[in-house]
Amino acid sequence: MKAYELIETIRIENPLVHNITNIVVANDSANGLLAIGASPFMSSTLAEMEEVAALANVVVLNMGTLNDEQLRAMIIAGKKANELNKPVVVDPVGAGATSYRRQAVKQLLSEVKPTLIRGNAGEIAALAGVTWAAKGVDAGSGTGDVQKIAKQLALKTQTLIAVSGETDIITNGQRTYLVHNGTSYFTKMTGAGCLHGCICGAFLAVAEENLLESVVAASTMYALAGELVAEQLNGLAVGSFRTYLLDQLSQINETIVRQRAKIERVDEDE
Amino acid sequence: MKAYELIETIRIENPLVHNITNIVVANDSANGLLAIGASPFMSSTLAEMEEVAALANVVVLNMGTLNDEQLRAMIIAGKKANELNKPVVVDPVGAGATSYRRQAVKQLLSEVKPTLIRGNAGEIAALAGVTWAAKGVDAGSGTGDVQKIAKQLALKTQTLIAVSGETDIITNGQRTYLVHNGTSYFTKMTGAGCLHGCICGAFLAVAEENLLESVVAASTMYALAGELVAEQLNGLAVGSFRTYLLDQLSQINETIVRQRAKIERVDEDE
Amino acid sequence: MKAYELIETIRIENPLVHNITNIVVANDSANGLLAIGASPFMSSTLAEMEEVAALANVVVLNMGTLNDEQLRAMIIAGKKANELNKPVVVDPVGAGATSYRRQAVKQLLSEVKPTLIRGNAGEIAALAGVTWAAKGVDAGSGTGDVQKIAKQLALKTQTLIAVSGETDIITNGQRTYLVHNGTSYFTKMTGAGCLHGCICGAFLAVAEENLLESVVAASTMYALAGELVAEQLNGLAVGSFRTYLLDQLSQINETIVRQRAKIERVDEDE
Repeated sequence: MKAYELIETIRIENPLVHNITNIVVANDSANGLLAIGASPFMSSTLAEMEEVAALANVVVLNMGTLNDEQLRAMIIAGKKANELNKPVVVDPVGAGATSYRRQAVKQLLSEVKPTLIRGNAGEIAALAGVTWAAKGVDAGSGTGDVQKIAKQLALKTQTLIAVSGETDIITNGQRTYLVHNGTSYFTKMTGAGCLHGCICGAFLAVAEENLLESVVAASTMYALAGELVAEQLNGLAVGSFRTYLLDQLSQINETIVRQRAKIERVDEDE
Repeated sequence: MKAYELIETIRIENPLVHNITNIVVANDSANGLLAIGASPFMSSTLAEMEEVAALANVVVLNMGTLNDEQLRAMIIAGKKANELNKPVVVDPVGAGATSYRRQAVKQLLSEVKPTLIRGNAGEIAALAGVTWAAKGVDAGSGTGDVQKIAKQLALKTQTLIAVSGETDIITNGQRTYLVHNGTSYFTKMTGAGCLHGCICGAFLAVAEENLLESVVAASTMYALAGELVAEQLNGLAVGSFRTYLLDQLSQINETIVRQRAKIERVDEDE
Repeated sequence: MKAYELIETIRIENPLVHNITNIVVANDSANGLLAIGASPFMSSTLAEMEEVAALANVVVLNMGTLNDEQLRAMIIAGKKANELNKPVVVDPVGAGATSYRRQAVKQLLSEVKPTLIRGNAGEIAALAGVTWAAKGVDAGSGTGDVQKIAKQLALKTQTLIAVSGETDIITNGQRTYLVHNGTSYFTKMTGAGCLHGCICGAFLAVAEENLLESVVAASTMYALAGELVAEQLNGLAVGSFRTYLLDQLSQINETIVRQRAKIERVDEDE
């Protein structure tokens, strides 16, 4: 896939990624972005939101520890990015967990048009209005067909959808890719999904076309980085995983991603 | 001790742990909880406090970087947990350091009934009204008899007390246990005590009885995890300690805790 | 340089370092301070700002994720420290990036007299009013003579200036030192500059005289710690760098710093 080239483009162009994010993952998200060659700017200060969004090459809105002020910041930054035709990623952390979050994400999506929504199955199901047994901010389990839900949400919102999981699902409603790379370690690292969203943002920032494929490339690179780390660990070692994931993200390149990518295209253009 | 079984129970039941915590330790606390098999939900957003507390199996209130809004969130979440008979852990970080914190913890304890208060010697002394040379959020040193202070506080507040230190002290005022496992590395890792509190919370969430012993089991497991890591390190290595502590927390099991536990029972039932 | 003695003094005196800082780096800053033997107190709660600043041996004001309330906290803490003749470090993160930050730093410096301003080239240029192509919170590149800019800013503000970079520049306007130790890994670790500022703060807290040289000693120790870690890593490994940097900061001592310091004095006393 041509979009794998973007791995190197990010290292050359160092896109500025504006993150509105939460106290749990801010450090890992910033370090992960630095590792792949992007330049993180973490700010949710209302007074500078328009300016930071305008400086940035992409805006990533993460609802992890949302409150009213942060929601306002997200709307300001997202609208500015929309106005300037910059990509916007929305990460609806725990979207289905509380009525506050359900309402907040609805408001956000009514005011800001994302390029990509990235979440786990529970979050994407919540956005699609499908009942799902999510567990707080974790994916939980449901019986719905996640692919179908993701496609419907993509069509309804006219937005790319990326579902993180054992198999990542990336779709624009017409074309759908499955990424079979990955490791269960991601479920044992807080903010693993958030970093996935940030990395998708960096790819979107440098992609000039084929946005769907750029998200597939981002997801494959990230999932493979985790897979490569997991192969090297002896026994369960969640702290080491986190450390070596950053190492691997700083080392990974187009060649190895092309060699090891396990991508499946599950439907045809309509 | 029967309560060591809870180590495996947590991995099966994945209790949802609601944490109101601070910007310094939020990441480590979440990763530590994931490592032992619990599911962390970090939120202090007023608008969702009742709902998150109601979803959770335990509520952990950490005063690390307290402010008025966070105090309100703690009171809402704590009251809801009390109402629903869910365990509540209060971690009075720096309780004696400033008059603001002294007053805040007093207010919190007047409105919320904790199951467990976990702190270092300085914090527990502050709550007991004993003069203590604490140093900011660190334990500092005092000449009082910490065991006696902890027992008195347990009786006065009708709450379990866990004092983290070289030897952990866990008491309900009648029965007192000393945990002689541990390592001085914990004093060189910010949030080591906070994670101790979170882990006690996860144990309380799955314990159906013998709450005191469940806190002893939690403290022993955590202290031993640190001890096992320290044995493997060459020279002083505080960064590696933090990484490998998460590894060890994901690997530790009932068998090794039973083998290596150094628990002392220092008084009789009354 | 005599000031290298302070490396050991910090381990003996454990100065209390009051940090007003941001969600991205709070954990690393606290752990880095613990590693060198200092005692971090992270708080930006208005209600306790005077008290915490009064307890502390130094106040470090970091603008990383500034907002109005945090700016007020900085002014209160900084004024209290000024009043009590305690050292104050200002870390103007992203000072030139947005008009909000430009205005905020101007206000801070009009109300608080820092002992040291530590920033990257872009931030120091912004404070000096020199045009600079900074990139968000990263240094960016400019064509100005950074040494000259730093000296002018030192003279104008009557403050020590430390510029972090490939070569650190430390000056009081009359005397200027270059620290040639370091590693490019620092540019791949979020908060590397912030921790530099914190460590300078710990040195200033225990220095009784020769403040300029104490900042040189702090900068040399920190840069060398990074250099020693980088020498041990195979390939690019940004996650391991972060972990081992804390290890190295807990191990480094006066002897090795004296052996390996690459300090250059570039001008004479006037």
